Amino acid sequence: MPFTPQEVEVHLEQLEGWEMEEERWIIRKFTFSSFMKGIAFVDEVAAISEAFNHHPFITIDHRTVTLRLTSWEVGGITGIDIKEAAQYNEAFDKARG
Amino acid sequence: MPFTPQEVEVHLEQLEGWEMEEERWIIRKFTFSSFMKGIAFVDEVAAISEAFNHHPFITIDHRTVTLRLTSWEVGGITGIDIKEAAQYNEAFDKARG
Repeated sequence: MPFTPQEVEVHLEQLEGWEMEEERWIIRKFTFSSFMKGIAFVDEVAAISEAFNHHPFITIDHRTVTLRLTSWEVGGITGIDIKEAAQYNEAFDKARG
Repeated sequence: MPFTPQEVEVHLEQLEGWEMEEERWIIRKFTFSSFMKGIAFVDEVAAISEAFNHHPFITIDHRTVTLRLTSWEVGGITGIDIKEAAQYNEAFDKARG
């Protein structure tokens, strides 16, 4: 069972920068000082998502990387999305120094 | 001056897999046997686009990487987009072995 939208909102209070989209995705945009710093972040995101075996939808628009997470198999947001988003935030905070 | 749509079509005949979109972008989807192979390709794409100082819009949807190119400054497709697309195709052909 996915979280209800209300449950997702409670989790998002602990997740800097993430928002719900269409009650089915959580999304965050990460902006970097250069294109290549964004690419290095995408490499970190890839390693994390391989470890979870759960892959975000990624877009790279010059210096902005957008990540969208959902649990397709249940049609909504679950604990794995929330845990993974927290790890992306940690990686981002590290990348910024 | 950007190429006319007719000029773009002539160039695309030499560029396997690329199509025009909204007369302003050229686009190609590249599919890989794994998520991480797609990520390795994105790293190659990044290096090429840094060399050109001209960055594509990139999306990564599990094993599928989509690249979109345009020359914003002239509002259409120019020779740099065509040359860069050709290098992405070479990188893809190499990645597939």
